[in-house]
Amino acid sequence: MIKVGIVGGTGYTGVELLRLLAGHSKVELRVITSRSEAGMPVADMFPNLRDKVDLCFSEPSVEALSSCDVVFFATPHGVAMKSAGELIENGVKVIDLGADFRIKDILVWERWYGMQHTAPELVDEAVYGLPEVNRKAIKQARLIACPGCYPTAVQLGFMPLLEQGLIDVNHLIADAKSGVSGAGRKANVGTLMCEASESMKAYAVPGHRHLPEISQGLVQMAKGEVGLTFVPHLTPMIRGIHATLYATLKSDTDLQSLYQQRYESEPFVDVMPAGAHPETRSVKGANQCRIAIHRPQGGDTVVVLSVIDNLVKGAAGQAVQSMNILFDLDEQAGLEIIALLP
Amino acid sequence: MIKVGIVGGTGYTGVELLRLLAGHSKVELRVITSRSEAGMPVADMFPNLRDKVDLCFSEPSVEALSSCDVVFFATPHGVAMKSAGELIENGVKVIDLGADFRIKDILVWERWYGMQHTAPELVDEAVYGLPEVNRKAIKQARLIACPGCYPTAVQLGFMPLLEQGLIDVNHLIADAKSGVSGAGRKANVGTLMCEASESMKAYAVPGHRHLPEISQGLVQMAKGEVGLTFVPHLTPMIRGIHATLYATLKSDTDLQSLYQQRYESEPFVDVMPAGAHPETRSVKGANQCRIAIHRPQGGDTVVVLSVIDNLVKGAAGQAVQSMNILFDLDEQAGLEIIALLP
Amino acid sequence: MIKVGIVGGTGYTGVELLRLLAGHSKVELRVITSRSEAGMPVADMFPNLRDKVDLCFSEPSVEALSSCDVVFFATPHGVAMKSAGELIENGVKVIDLGADFRIKDILVWERWYGMQHTAPELVDEAVYGLPEVNRKAIKQARLIACPGCYPTAVQLGFMPLLEQGLIDVNHLIADAKSGVSGAGRKANVGTLMCEASESMKAYAVPGHRHLPEISQGLVQMAKGEVGLTFVPHLTPMIRGIHATLYATLKSDTDLQSLYQQRYESEPFVDVMPAGAHPETRSVKGANQCRIAIHRPQGGDTVVVLSVIDNLVKGAAGQAVQSMNILFDLDEQAGLEIIALLP
Amino acid sequence: MIKVGIVGGTGYTGVELLRLLAGHSKVELRVITSRSEAGMPVADMFPNLRDKVDLCFSEPSVEALSSCDVVFFATPHGVAMKSAGELIENGVKVIDLGADFRIKDILVWERWYGMQHTAPELVDEAVYGLPEVNRKAIKQARLIACPGCYPTAVQLGFMPLLEQGLIDVNHLIADAKSGVSGAGRKANVGTLMCEASESMKAYAVPGHRHLPEISQGLVQMAKGEVGLTFVPHLTPMIRGIHATLYATLKSDTDLQSLYQQRYESEPFVDVMPAGAHPETRSVKGANQCRIAIHRPQGGDTVVVLSVIDNLVKGAAGQAVQSMNILFDLDEQAGLEIIALLP
Repeated sequence: MIKVGIVGGTGYTGVELLRLLAGHSKVELRVITSRSEAGMPVADMFPNLRDKVDLCFSEPSVEALSSCDVVFFATPHGVAMKSAGELIENGVKVIDLGADFRIKDILVWERWYGMQHTAPELVDEAVYGLPEVNRKAIKQARLIACPGCYPTAVQLGFMPLLEQGLIDVNHLIADAKSGVSGAGRKANVGTLMCEASESMKAYAVPGHRHLPEISQGLVQMAKGEVGLTFVPHLTPMIRGIHATLYATLKSDTDLQSLYQQRYESEPFVDVMPAGAHPETRSVKGANQCRIAIHRPQGGDTVVVLSVIDNLVKGAAGQAVQSMNILFDLDEQAGLEIIALLP
Repeated sequence: MIKVGIVGGTGYTGVELLRLLAGHSKVELRVITSRSEAGMPVADMFPNLRDKVDLCFSEPSVEALSSCDVVFFATPHGVAMKSAGELIENGVKVIDLGADFRIKDILVWERWYGMQHTAPELVDEAVYGLPEVNRKAIKQARLIACPGCYPTAVQLGFMPLLEQGLIDVNHLIADAKSGVSGAGRKANVGTLMCEASESMKAYAVPGHRHLPEISQGLVQMAKGEVGLTFVPHLTPMIRGIHATLYATLKSDTDLQSLYQQRYESEPFVDVMPAGAHPETRSVKGANQCRIAIHRPQGGDTVVVLSVIDNLVKGAAGQAVQSMNILFDLDEQAGLEIIALLP
Repeated sequence: MIKVGIVGGTGYTGVELLRLLAGHSKVELRVITSRSEAGMPVADMFPNLRDKVDLCFSEPSVEALSSCDVVFFATPHGVAMKSAGELIENGVKVIDLGADFRIKDILVWERWYGMQHTAPELVDEAVYGLPEVNRKAIKQARLIACPGCYPTAVQLGFMPLLEQGLIDVNHLIADAKSGVSGAGRKANVGTLMCEASESMKAYAVPGHRHLPEISQGLVQMAKGEVGLTFVPHLTPMIRGIHATLYATLKSDTDLQSLYQQRYESEPFVDVMPAGAHPETRSVKGANQCRIAIHRPQGGDTVVVLSVIDNLVKGAAGQAVQSMNILFDLDEQAGLEIIALLP
Repeated sequence: MIKVGIVGGTGYTGVELLRLLAGHSKVELRVITSRSEAGMPVADMFPNLRDKVDLCFSEPSVEALSSCDVVFFATPHGVAMKSAGELIENGVKVIDLGADFRIKDILVWERWYGMQHTAPELVDEAVYGLPEVNRKAIKQARLIACPGCYPTAVQLGFMPLLEQGLIDVNHLIADAKSGVSGAGRKANVGTLMCEASESMKAYAVPGHRHLPEISQGLVQMAKGEVGLTFVPHLTPMIRGIHATLYATLKSDTDLQSLYQQRYESEPFVDVMPAGAHPETRSVKGANQCRIAIHRPQGGDTVVVLSVIDNLVKGAAGQAVQSMNILFDLDEQAGLEIIALLP
């Protein structure tokens, strides 16, 4: 049994980690910390976990966490970078669901996140936890930086085209629609039901923190600079990201085959039949990315539709997938959940 | 492995059965019939089942179904009564999620369902599949009539009070709120998103088909006549029933202890702590009934709050629970799913 | 033109008042105060008001407010009682949408609202602003206490029965379902979209602040004590209250005629035809209460269905209705808005 | 008073027309036809119209309609083209909210709409009812073809850029998100609440009927061919369209000033301040298009955000606006409604 600790379990990625790990047969949940809720049974805050998780939140403690094989950080940026180092030195694997170790260029990170990075040496070491790109490196990692939700949907959608050099990389467009859970479980007027339901809006068009992360990934795939316009939208639903990607084709090719081959052996990427339109609800609660490729009216614009559940393949599920790889378990262990439809 | 067939798998209880059975380690899905969709892969209609269920819908056939150990009917009323008999004769266990065998009084059934019953002899034999009441009988049954969704929430909520004779049975009130999936997956103006979302309404106040079913169950618990007013409401959410039950207490007692003792060994009924308010989302996707008991201002009115997922504990989950009992499996097999929250 | 001031215009009743008053041909909006947002154009916070309201929020000032003919308080309880007196002395009419002057018994108020009342003498004078009960008194008032949202729906629903002494007053039940806007525009985890949508729950079953207010109104109608059980539910929609009321009939009568006659000349109460089920969306955005009366299976339980928009007939619309009466305007002025459907 | 008839008033654009016209002081509603519902009071189908509209649906009759000054067709395509001619000959103005007269090229129309056009001569005469483009022609028209909902949002969004020749016209992208009411009030599995809520999906990516209509408009603005990729998405809300438009700038200019000047005198197009993100709810129920312009990271990609209520500025409201122009009324008459927020 793998002994697991979680730092910061009171948010949506935290409860989702708990849901997945409580049903994972190789995992023993050991510690879950929350400074603000120390002492409270986890199931009092999240009644879906009654009779499923009997832990209480505890004060963060390096000692307690060091008794684990792996510690997940489900914390806002700026938290993991402060304690990851000590845990790693103590032989604990660290999987960060936050943003601290995603961006390799420290200056870029500091500009977008508005704080000084306190562990730049760990950024170098950290492996970006997108298994479809970095499976081998994940297996060897001590520190895994789980991708953000938008970056997961967008990178998996563009990857085959960029790897094959098929599109004009100067004008990539990612129009992404996210459910409200992406904003987290924070008291906040903007995500009240009365503000966010029955409405649609773009936000952060001048620049969103996931932009540099996505660009970094696309650059690596394209082996060269890319020009990306990324427009996120707040969508009146709880879970789900729908990324609609646009690019101009430079040459003709069988896009459907390209995608099917690229993802043939990927357990969590499903290329739909030609002509299909994936719905976010088809992945609700599941660790799945579903993709469809279109070329409207046979023109030179390719449209890729890529959907995930932002809390699963976009966060907690992907983190567990990395954990499975890291500990040589079946990559699908604990992740065979079928999406809840309707 | 238990060989399973499903008749009528194109509705919401059908896809929910598939979700649960596909993740059940002792079950082999053999046949799923649909006259209208014969030949179509199930996963084409329900893309959440891609790579999880590879069956195609087939024409209904007693022969094919007779190769199964158990057949679930996820059909509108009037269908199961026509073929259940033949299957039972062929040694197949039948679990009906529809209404054909729920009501013992044939005349009452015929009045409320507006058709002649073609298999009254089977009604006698059928066991009402509420395990918390009939576990022993279910174990021996050849034919199980799964309770309706409202009846499950209301009966489990009133049961301890009625069994102990603590309330005035002449003026029971069940004010029940159901998500829209209770109306099924039928093209219908009334349950369009534009009609049913952002609105609340009562319906069928003069009389709903679940009224005689609930009354039959309450009479059995009370060992005598009961007077029940049942008002269902269409609620703007997909899944969930919230039953708010009112009765006048005849004598003083510790209601919290009463409920906790009654349901102590029930794996799928959770009595919440005193003062709690269960949310339907705490059981979304899970085979669970959560109950809280209140006595506002210490008066003689008792208020019971009882929530279920209408498609799980109110339909497919309860059916699988009965199957587990019937085949001597762990009653929780395939039903350990944690509710999806948020 | 009636010169109008609003104190506390940053909440949902505030923006709703602005919507109604901006379209009211006899009204001139003069002042809108908000300590926290002073200086900000109202339309920056509520973009639906762009080009419709060109005021800025200003610091609260008795002087500025005293230049108005009437001042609306759209504030949390405890605010209006501090400044209403001075405004009234300055000859300004005060209409409070909050709770400060609704309950005549100061001790009861102080117990439920957890603070000392600083203007008990005004409570005596205040007229409870339910025009269907107090139209004449409203006309003469200097200070109007607008009813709460639940109290409006429940009192209008029970009134004809209580006035005629037709029901057992000891066991009245009001099962009420409210949209989330009833909780106001405050940063609060419980009303985040991810917490409140796709779920249903009762809350405050042990006791809600609207209970003593409703009871006070029912007692007056019944001319004697009443026993009321009031259970509010948080419903996954933005606007609307659906009150489902239950009582035991003491004598036989034509309930449909009773209600139609009682509300015949009321412009904002619509008694639906026998057998109808009002939907909250049929009053969305409109100053309307729609009622239907049922007697299921011809028994002795009467069921009244009463729907309003909590922000209109349950708050801002009713306040404007009182203002119209107070200033001898057409009672429907500015309130002829048709509900938005779908 | 302008005597008004409506053909096909049982859909969402029909009831929206009724809402707007019932509140229009210069209009007398004379006739509303529906073959299927003849005889039924309109307010029985749409209870928000109780006491507001006392008409009954009647059988379609050219005679009755010919007594009107203007007839609106709120019908599926293929209906208006059959009777518009006769009404026009009888001196009645015709405003078609459907698609019959929008596309000038008959062959294109017939290909996309899959039927033969029976009144091609009227197509020539018809004026495309986008007042911001064709106000003068509308004033003189006998037959007005109201734009589709997507075309309204997209054309108003692109217009200033195209008129000034500022963008590369070969790779225009319109990523549009529509509420479910755009699909109409038809019994249909795909728009059931259980199918369409809590999910997001693109649809008709290979080609949507609004594509040729939008292209026709853009070509006229650009005075030359354009290459447009149009991807509509079904969004889990009732009303609203959010069009996110992308183009590559060919030259530098002050985009904010450009838009403000272009729409300075347009009563129903609101250019928001630089940096803003319009929400669809800010126009819910209102005849308004709100636009914001962005140039992320100062690059050469321009992003235009354009929102409307699909049933108002995208259908019924725009039709009434055209009627006002046609009959020399104040263009804003009956359209001063403030959006319902929250």
